[in-house]
Parts: sequence; structure tokens; C-alpha cells
Amino acid sequence: MNIPAYVKVVEVGPRDGLQNEPFRIPTNAKVELVDRLADAGLSVIETGSFVSPKWVPQMNDTAEVLAAIKQKPGTRYPVLAPNIEGFRRAVKAGAKEVAVFAAASETFSRKNLNCSIEESLQRFNEVCSAARSEGITVRGYISCVLGCPYEGKIDAEAVARVAGQLYDSGCYEVSLGDTIGVGTPLRARRLVETVARVVPMECLAAHFHDTYGQALANVLAVLECGVAVVDASVAGLGGCPYAPGASGNVATEDLLYCLHGMDVETGVDLESVAAAGRFICSELGRDPGSKVSKALSARLAQ
Amino acid sequence: MNIPAYVKVVEVGPRDGLQNEPFRIPTNAKVELVDRLADAGLSVIETGSFVSPKWVPQMNDTAEVLAAIKQKPGTRYPVLAPNIEGFRRAVKAGAKEVAVFAAASETFSRKNLNCSIEESLQRFNEVCSAARSEGITVRGYISCVLGCPYEGKIDAEAVARVAGQLYDSGCYEVSLGDTIGVGTPLRARRLVETVARVVPMECLAAHFHDTYGQALANVLAVLECGVAVVDASVAGLGGCPYAPGASGNVATEDLLYCLHGMDVETGVDLESVAAAGRFICSELGRDPGSKVSKALSARLAQ
Repeated sequence: MNIPAYVKVVEVGPRDGLQNEPFRIPTNAKVELVDRLADAGLSVIETGSFVSPKWVPQMNDTAEVLAAIKQKPGTRYPVLAPNIEGFRRAVKAGAKEVAVFAAASETFSRKNLNCSIEESLQRFNEVCSAARSEGITVRGYISCVLGCPYEGKIDAEAVARVAGQLYDSGCYEVSLGDTIGVGTPLRARRLVETVARVVPMECLAAHFHDTYGQALANVLAVLECGVAVVDASVAGLGGCPYAPGASGNVATEDLLYCLHGMDVETGVDLESVAAAGRFICSELGRDPGSKVSKALSARLAQ
Repeated sequence: MNIPAYVKVVEVGPRDGLQNEPFRIPTNAKVELVDRLADAGLSVIETGSFVSPKWVPQMNDTAEVLAAIKQKPGTRYPVLAPNIEGFRRAVKAGAKEVAVFAAASETFSRKNLNCSIEESLQRFNEVCSAARSEGITVRGYISCVLGCPYEGKIDAEAVARVAGQLYDSGCYEVSLGDTIGVGTPLRARRLVETVARVVPMECLAAHFHDTYGQALANVLAVLECGVAVVDASVAGLGGCPYAPGASGNVATEDLLYCLHGMDVETGVDLESVAAAGRFICSELGRDPGSKVSKALSARLAQ
């Protein structure tokens, strides 16, 4: 079994997770969550979003969160920047890394970003140029890579085209998002193999939602073909407003358990992540959506 | 990706599942569950147990269940028989296939079966001999193959020894049970590779609980090395009384979604299984523990 010796886990709970939770949590709880995740050893923590607060009110305190977190040296705290205005706000708030968010589905792009894929890529190109001149790194996301709530199946070649353009614009990493969690392992692997023809494998990340319980199996399938960056959400926070019944990303705890069980290094302490997950879930008034977290809690209760 | 073209799904919900649910359901609901699962196309449905009702009161109506189900031609309805007395009761009730249940951990064997591994294998040898003379087929289970609640990690060679003896006694198939769900993909694959040295790969089944969210990833890992029989539990029914917080087997719905997504044939209709799962969960007063089931229900509700 050919699995990378080290996998970088990108924690997206504080943004992709909390953004899609129905209950809005206070700024100081977000700050505590981010700091706990950094202390657990996660080297990349997506911290918030500079999307219009009209669209995503849960994220309207990202500037305050960025100002209040500990900013651990060596840890990256990317924030979403949908366009040049969002980028300017992010820079003003002290962000050193931003993320842009494209779609592989034309319909999803128009409904979610209010523009065509091509228009969105032009916006992101502008963000990347500005970022380059300010020494800010840019991460690229692509949503709907294995299926779209409007268009159904998405062609891997279409994903590769968007991925290639994001990479050429200057994104140092392209995260492939199965936004509605419909993918299965063979399709996930074929997708990665197709995209890796235009973006180097080491610059690809897997971002798989667990709506159909496939996320970890899909992660395994792409680890086996060389992907070494995986996005995950503490306590499985999140969902997708466009996919009823959708659950969040693969839970960070479940991913870490899997990786550590295969002797893959991550630099992350599982128990500390689980504790951070229990903390934020108590704020949200829900149980952690991580099976590892539940099993560890049951063990603690013995 | 080298995945078998056909996978036999062995449905264990009516036995392994319901046995470990806290709420006992009426006989007629069990009968309806088994019939619905057979109608969905599942070719093997573990229907009950002839363990002493003192130990497993939930299964004390297995004879009535066997008598009342439709017994679809070509479908197998194995029942658990822990010893020759259980075997006699199973045969009297009309069972055409029985299952015996060994452990790979000495401590688990003593606590769960009240005897050493060696003593249990002698009992099962007696059952297999009797079964042979009556034309009854026997399936063998091994529990704790990837970890034991008392002994921790279990050596793959120890599992292989038990598997070899069950096979030599006449079990046509040996099901490798990660009873407490602690396994991860690499260890699951190494285990199968070790056991396959003594039992032919086509006679091995994967039986993985999802306590730590690893079940489907572990299934994928062993499918890739040639396992083509997978045990699953409709709606993820079950748990393990020896492992607090344990969830049931991999949910049949989630397994089928994964297999069908990879164009693996199963002969099973996913929607019908999901409907059977919703039926039994309404009897149990709980939500299905299958993400596919939840996602399909959300879609139906739209």
C-alpha cells in the first residue's frame, strides 16, 4: 500500500465548518477554537472569510478573529477572499494567506458565485496578482469536483481545466472539493489522476464531504495515488446549504485516527483535536460528528 | 484500482445488529425485516441465533422467525450456533446454514464464550462434523481480529491460526471481525494478506465495525487485495456490549453506495435496503446509522 509518509492536514472547521452550521457562535469561542487547533499541531487552519456578510453573516467577525488569535509562528491562517475587495479587507485585517473558491460546475458557479466559471477565474487571477505583489500566498478551491446538485456528474477534464488555470494564476495548492459528498473511491482516484496531468500531485489537496459516508474511503483512494494534503473539519462541523442532508467534511479526528493507524506522520495530536471539537460542539449545542470523538468520549466516561 | 467485479454482501443486521440494540423488537417486525432484505436482493441474511436465551434474550425467537420468513429460493438464512446443542436447535428449526463464532483473543474468548480458543475450536469442529452429515453449511466468524478490548492489538498470525482451523474444520467461509472497530486500512490489508496464506482469499469475508469511522476505508483496503465478501448491517444496526461507544457494522446502504459507485455488481437494490432500514429503525425508535440513508431521506423530503 503506497501511502505518503507525511500528510498535511488542513483544518477547515472554523470556516467551511462553522459557516454551514445553523447556530452562530460568539467571536471569542471562534478564537479559542482556532488557538486550540493550532496548539494541537495543525499547521494550516482556515480561520474565516471575507465574503460579503450579506451572504455569510456567520463570518462577519473574521477581522476580529484574526486580530485576537495567538498567530503561532509557522502556522498558517488562510481566509476566504472571493474577489479583490475581499482580498483588500483580508490584507487589512492582517491575513498572510487567502483562499479563492471556484466551481467545476457552470450552474453551481452561477448560483453560488453569481458569475460564470471563466469570470470567477478572472477575478481570482486579479486576486493572485495583487497577492503576489504583497507577498500573500493563495490557495485555490474547486467545488463540485465529483458531482453538482444541479448538473449531476462532473467531467474530470472540466475539473482539470479549472485546476490548471488556478495553478497557472499562482495558487500554490488546489483543493478538490466533493462539496455534496457523492463521490466514491474509484471516481475520486480517476479525478486526481486526471487533474495531476496539469497540476503537480504535491500541489493537490483532497476536500471530501461525508454526506454519503464515503469521505474517508475516498481519501484513502487518493492517498494511494500520491495526494498528501487533506482538508478536514474538526468534529465533522459543517454541511452544505445547497445539499440537504449534507454533512460536513471528513472529521479531522477520524482522518487523524486513520493516518496515525497507518503510521503516517501528521504532527497533530488527536486527543487535543478531539478536545477542541468537544469544546466547539458544546458551544453549538450538538454532538461531535466524529465517530472517533464519540468513541474516545465513551472511553473517558468508563 | 484492482477491485473485484462482484462483491457478495452478507447482511448481518437481523442478528449481529438487533442483538446489540438495547430495545427488543417484536418477532413479526424481525420477519418483515428479513423478508424485505431478501426482496432487496441480498443473498445471505443472518437471521438469528441459537445462543442460550439467558445470554442473548433478544434472539430467543429465532425459531419462530425462521418458520415465518418467506425463505426465498437461492437466499441463505444462516443462524448462529455456538455449540452442538445450538446446532441441534437450529436444525430442528429448519436452518440450512449455521455460523460459529471464535475469537482471535484468548481473553475475549474466555469472557465471551466461557472457554479458551482451543476449546471453542473443538466445539466448532463437532458442529462442523454434524453439519457435514446433515448437509448443512457452516460459516466461521473470528472476532477481535484487529484489536481486543482486553488485550489490545492482536497478532495477525494468531488470527491466521484460528482461521486455518475453522477452514480445516469445514467452514466454507471465514469472516474476519473487527469487533471493536479499531482497525485502520493498512493493518486490515496486512491481516488479510497474512490470513490468505492459510485460507483461500475467495473464502474470506470482511466484517468491520464502524466505531472509529474506519469501516468503509478498511473495506476498500481489503477489496483491493482481493476480498470479495463483505458483512454489513442495514442502517448500521448494532454495536458491541464489550466496547462502549461502539457502533455497528458498516451500514449496508453506505457499502452498497460505495460498491455501486465503483461499478461493482452486488445484485442488491440500494433504495429497497434503505427502506428496510427506515422500517426497522422506526420500530427501534432511532434514526438510521447510515449516512446514505439520511441523505436519501433528505432528498425524498425535498
